[in-house]
Amino acid sequence: MHMMRVAVAGASGYAGGEVLRLLLAHPGLEVGAVTASANAGQPLGAVHPHLTPLADRVLEETTAAVLAGHDAVVLALPHGHSAALAAQLGEEVVVVDCGADFRLRSQWSWEAYYDTPWAGSWPYGMPELPTADGRQRARLRGARRIAVPGCYPTAVSLALAPGLAAGLLEPRDVVVVAASGTSGAGKAAKAHLLGSEVMGAMSPYGVGGVHRHTPEIEQNLQEVGGPEVEVSFTPTLAPMPRGILATCTARVTDAGLDPQALRAAWATAYADEPFVHLLPEGRWPSTGSVLGSNCVHLQVALDERVGRAVVVAAVDNLTKGTAGAAVQCLNLALGLPETTGLPLAGVAP
Amino acid sequence: MHMMRVAVAGASGYAGGEVLRLLLAHPGLEVGAVTASANAGQPLGAVHPHLTPLADRVLEETTAAVLAGHDAVVLALPHGHSAALAAQLGEEVVVVDCGADFRLRSQWSWEAYYDTPWAGSWPYGMPELPTADGRQRARLRGARRIAVPGCYPTAVSLALAPGLAAGLLEPRDVVVVAASGTSGAGKAAKAHLLGSEVMGAMSPYGVGGVHRHTPEIEQNLQEVGGPEVEVSFTPTLAPMPRGILATCTARVTDAGLDPQALRAAWATAYADEPFVHLLPEGRWPSTGSVLGSNCVHLQVALDERVGRAVVVAAVDNLTKGTAGAAVQCLNLALGLPETTGLPLAGVAP
Amino acid sequence: MHMMRVAVAGASGYAGGEVLRLLLAHPGLEVGAVTASANAGQPLGAVHPHLTPLADRVLEETTAAVLAGHDAVVLALPHGHSAALAAQLGEEVVVVDCGADFRLRSQWSWEAYYDTPWAGSWPYGMPELPTADGRQRARLRGARRIAVPGCYPTAVSLALAPGLAAGLLEPRDVVVVAASGTSGAGKAAKAHLLGSEVMGAMSPYGVGGVHRHTPEIEQNLQEVGGPEVEVSFTPTLAPMPRGILATCTARVTDAGLDPQALRAAWATAYADEPFVHLLPEGRWPSTGSVLGSNCVHLQVALDERVGRAVVVAAVDNLTKGTAGAAVQCLNLALGLPETTGLPLAGVAP
Amino acid sequence: MHMMRVAVAGASGYAGGEVLRLLLAHPGLEVGAVTASANAGQPLGAVHPHLTPLADRVLEETTAAVLAGHDAVVLALPHGHSAALAAQLGEEVVVVDCGADFRLRSQWSWEAYYDTPWAGSWPYGMPELPTADGRQRARLRGARRIAVPGCYPTAVSLALAPGLAAGLLEPRDVVVVAASGTSGAGKAAKAHLLGSEVMGAMSPYGVGGVHRHTPEIEQNLQEVGGPEVEVSFTPTLAPMPRGILATCTARVTDAGLDPQALRAAWATAYADEPFVHLLPEGRWPSTGSVLGSNCVHLQVALDERVGRAVVVAAVDNLTKGTAGAAVQCLNLALGLPETTGLPLAGVAP
Repeated sequence: MHMMRVAVAGASGYAGGEVLRLLLAHPGLEVGAVTASANAGQPLGAVHPHLTPLADRVLEETTAAVLAGHDAVVLALPHGHSAALAAQLGEEVVVVDCGADFRLRSQWSWEAYYDTPWAGSWPYGMPELPTADGRQRARLRGARRIAVPGCYPTAVSLALAPGLAAGLLEPRDVVVVAASGTSGAGKAAKAHLLGSEVMGAMSPYGVGGVHRHTPEIEQNLQEVGGPEVEVSFTPTLAPMPRGILATCTARVTDAGLDPQALRAAWATAYADEPFVHLLPEGRWPSTGSVLGSNCVHLQVALDERVGRAVVVAAVDNLTKGTAGAAVQCLNLALGLPETTGLPLAGVAP
Repeated sequence: MHMMRVAVAGASGYAGGEVLRLLLAHPGLEVGAVTASANAGQPLGAVHPHLTPLADRVLEETTAAVLAGHDAVVLALPHGHSAALAAQLGEEVVVVDCGADFRLRSQWSWEAYYDTPWAGSWPYGMPELPTADGRQRARLRGARRIAVPGCYPTAVSLALAPGLAAGLLEPRDVVVVAASGTSGAGKAAKAHLLGSEVMGAMSPYGVGGVHRHTPEIEQNLQEVGGPEVEVSFTPTLAPMPRGILATCTARVTDAGLDPQALRAAWATAYADEPFVHLLPEGRWPSTGSVLGSNCVHLQVALDERVGRAVVVAAVDNLTKGTAGAAVQCLNLALGLPETTGLPLAGVAP
Repeated sequence: MHMMRVAVAGASGYAGGEVLRLLLAHPGLEVGAVTASANAGQPLGAVHPHLTPLADRVLEETTAAVLAGHDAVVLALPHGHSAALAAQLGEEVVVVDCGADFRLRSQWSWEAYYDTPWAGSWPYGMPELPTADGRQRARLRGARRIAVPGCYPTAVSLALAPGLAAGLLEPRDVVVVAASGTSGAGKAAKAHLLGSEVMGAMSPYGVGGVHRHTPEIEQNLQEVGGPEVEVSFTPTLAPMPRGILATCTARVTDAGLDPQALRAAWATAYADEPFVHLLPEGRWPSTGSVLGSNCVHLQVALDERVGRAVVVAAVDNLTKGTAGAAVQCLNLALGLPETTGLPLAGVAP
Repeated sequence: MHMMRVAVAGASGYAGGEVLRLLLAHPGLEVGAVTASANAGQPLGAVHPHLTPLADRVLEETTAAVLAGHDAVVLALPHGHSAALAAQLGEEVVVVDCGADFRLRSQWSWEAYYDTPWAGSWPYGMPELPTADGRQRARLRGARRIAVPGCYPTAVSLALAPGLAAGLLEPRDVVVVAASGTSGAGKAAKAHLLGSEVMGAMSPYGVGGVHRHTPEIEQNLQEVGGPEVEVSFTPTLAPMPRGILATCTARVTDAGLDPQALRAAWATAYADEPFVHLLPEGRWPSTGSVLGSNCVHLQVALDERVGRAVVVAAVDNLTKGTAGAAVQCLNLALGLPETTGLPLAGVAP
């Protein structure tokens, strides 16, 4: 296979490190330039000691000059930095942005949640999303610019989409509580993220709809289920490095719904999806089972007493939730088979 | 202070061990007989090496003869065993049951969720519950038989009660997702509870309203908020030994509700409660902050976008969630100040 | 009991927080001023949300004026700050220093390991240490200045002292590998201490005798076993918030030593010590069993194949390893029974 | 590449699961029969939910008939079961045993540590071991029977071998303390391995030279450093699912040894080894950096004060410590490049 070269900007963070881990195992892509800002000049071994084969590669400054000349560039930067860089990279270069900058199509939503100017939007990198006019995948094949979804939106959107698409769930009574591992909060040193603080502890944050992933979740679900969809979303921090467990409930539109009919919506929606797995009845997803993999594990139940569906999704926030999605998008953009190089098996126990 | 003697039946489990830990620090109660079934004959040091001062105390068989002659007996047995034992203990002995046997007042509910005959009900040991005719506390002073609440019901009931009592929350649109540490699943060796399985992993269980704490939660909230209350309850297992974080949301009855008015309901309800703390605005509960303490930490927010209140409660499932509540009930039953011997500070980090 | 007032300087760190937790449960001591530097002006609830009863107490600036007028002052400051403060507090005030400043009696040792001028030494707060002329305890009764031992030195010194004192261990062939929870590294935000980094990971640090606790360990063991004692000490960071497990091995002086004779040295040495427990044969210490308690759990074995004794000690680095020792010293200095207010039972599971 | 088929016996345990995970990513090997005993008849998805692509494969009974007809068979069975099975598989089948049965060349050692008859020995599957007559690798190319090393012996032997081979370390003064994740203890449900027990706790086990890996470690090191080598080995259980951190110290033979000369022995020994990495000076191994990878990370220091070398090794006990070594041996036995299909990058954070 001809190896295409991929540069990674923002390679010293957790998302960038995971992109590099996946590229190392990819048979068609190879690691090109790796760049950083504060860590520029350091060897990768100093910031990502787990990337043994890249230990001696030196982080360069994040500039368009360094990133140019690759087949593709993955941006893993804080929001607000992608637009300027992307503008300097020619249209012949595929650019995949792991940050938030180009995810929201509504300027109003962006401005309500972010502190930088709206940069516009790019095709949204969630191939499996069953939008009104077919899978999102179709828009990603051969695309030159792709916005990689956020980690929570990945878990929540794929969990709820089939039921909303099928009209089985009330769009105005959706409640999501999700637990995330600490890597979702990034690698910047903050006292409340110290191991001493987080081990043995669960706590919520961004309560009351203020988390920035809220409008992204609603954008996705509205595309699937119509403009009435609104979501109560509460994220919590769990004592584990990786993983998202999203518990999503919604009132069913038909109180007498047959549980098998409910289940069938998910089974049908994802029957041909390589990365989205509806577990057999009776087994529930665990973040431990998807660690390091690009899979989404799902299960659905009907609580007939209260007339609500409960859908639970588990993903690895860094793999399918970020870097795995980025590589999946690269595959589509570059004309490779979509699953190339992406782990289907998790690392457990 | 005259020391009253307390026997603990089922002392080899996690709940029994926590009762013993609290009794060791109690200035008015002392440890009497400690009993077990499979572990009878072993020294406590072999099953609870953390209870250093009791290391040489030998576990006796759980029989009424061994338990008799104490001022009080705490039962920490699997459900189905309490009624027969309690019947053999005279009314002069205070009996506090940490198990489920006497919690539910509805035989129908019991039979829908449990596999043993309904044993009836005892006064419910949640002093802080604001029932229609005053705090539950009044029924516990001097009581001879008390049913200690379940761990999830403690967190969820105290989280939601003020809003339901004040008519601020829709009784038919209550959704609870709660995370529990593994000690809530007990000490019996099961493969899915191995450290290798649970560290780094979150997973749900008992999804769809089938968890046995569901009817207990609804019983409490119906007493507070009327017979229409129904709850969608999803418990999840978190990678930590102790702690419950309950994220409780409900649609508010008045879409234009002032956030401060919402908050005021909780502030008022718990202003005089020694163990229930509404945190200052902007701080959210963490299970890490209540570890080993008898406190409940609460916070409430209004998500005006979607018209839902979000209330989060953190408790230690073994302390306030079980053994601390048992000692609190003992204090009330035996005429001691309610807070005697109960830790208000958690062990952190 | 007349309550004596204790001020805590450096109350916003982990050591200071643990001192406050223990003072809250102490029947003879009450919390006086609480001070900090960067956090001065904040309520304690913002930095130690687990100290519920003190949530509204405001941290003052650390000055001698604020600390004066108490029966005792506990210093929990970075090294280098204690001498100047202590000099401003009259001799009528008991000062107990949790930092390193006054632990080393050798200026040469201090200067080899620390970057501030040697401040001299105070009586060393390890009551149980069996020095050549009796327990260290005798020097602490009524003392006005006490240096609280370091966490590793507590575990290692108490583990090895009986064998060295009895001449059973070769003083020049002592090897210690110890694992510590992350709270030992403090509360300052550092990237390598993030939860994401430490959960699931063990790593060494300070390898090759460079850790600052090395000279303190040797000072203690030389006092017990003579000037030839030297120690190879390797600390490691373990994925838990609290606890030290010290695995200490030394060649035995008599290759034909009877294992029971070895064991007897420890049994005799600690027979009357309330906080130091030699476990029954066959049970090994676990940091989980001493969490939050002031106990040291010990076990000893003879590896006859290779002629080495292996002694393992478990302590809570913040309790017996720091704040518990400080309170134990306060008790001795203030004329209270030595065990007053100190937990003997750990918090487990 | 022609795909060779590999059967896995004992596929329901942790070692078997990891072998399957690695086979799924291997370009030249494919998963054949998967067998178990108690779990026979179950789908793999029920016992290894992380192996998503194999979820529907059904575990068969472990019999020679089922295992026959493959290019290779990996045995991941409790000790005592491999000999009888292997005898029924023809010499044309490569058999790699992850258990202990064929590791020890001394019947006397076997009988001192195991409770089943000695089965003899097979070529020892540690390609990197620098034995007196060259690397062990030479004996593995084209071998038909290979004994995969134990997890602790892998870390300890590779850590100490270069120094012993170079005569820099005293063979009679070697002390090893190693911490292992809980998966090393297997998947059988035992109360002391419950998550509630192990999270937040470190404890030793098999103290005093009684751990079964002791004779295997000594066999390896004696082959490298001569018959006088003896090792004090203390394993400890750490609160993490995977990983071994081995802290190995030995007195240096030359008290005036130059630290760079010490380091050079390791640098030279492993310069051409793809999986063994001496880290740059100043960086220490972490189990977190090798999780899921086949790498060994090493660092060495000289404690000149006490005349001891300290070598620390980190491996993933299930990958390089078991299943990765098995695949590495399969590669050698089957004539594939040694590194084929084996991850060099760990999964972090």
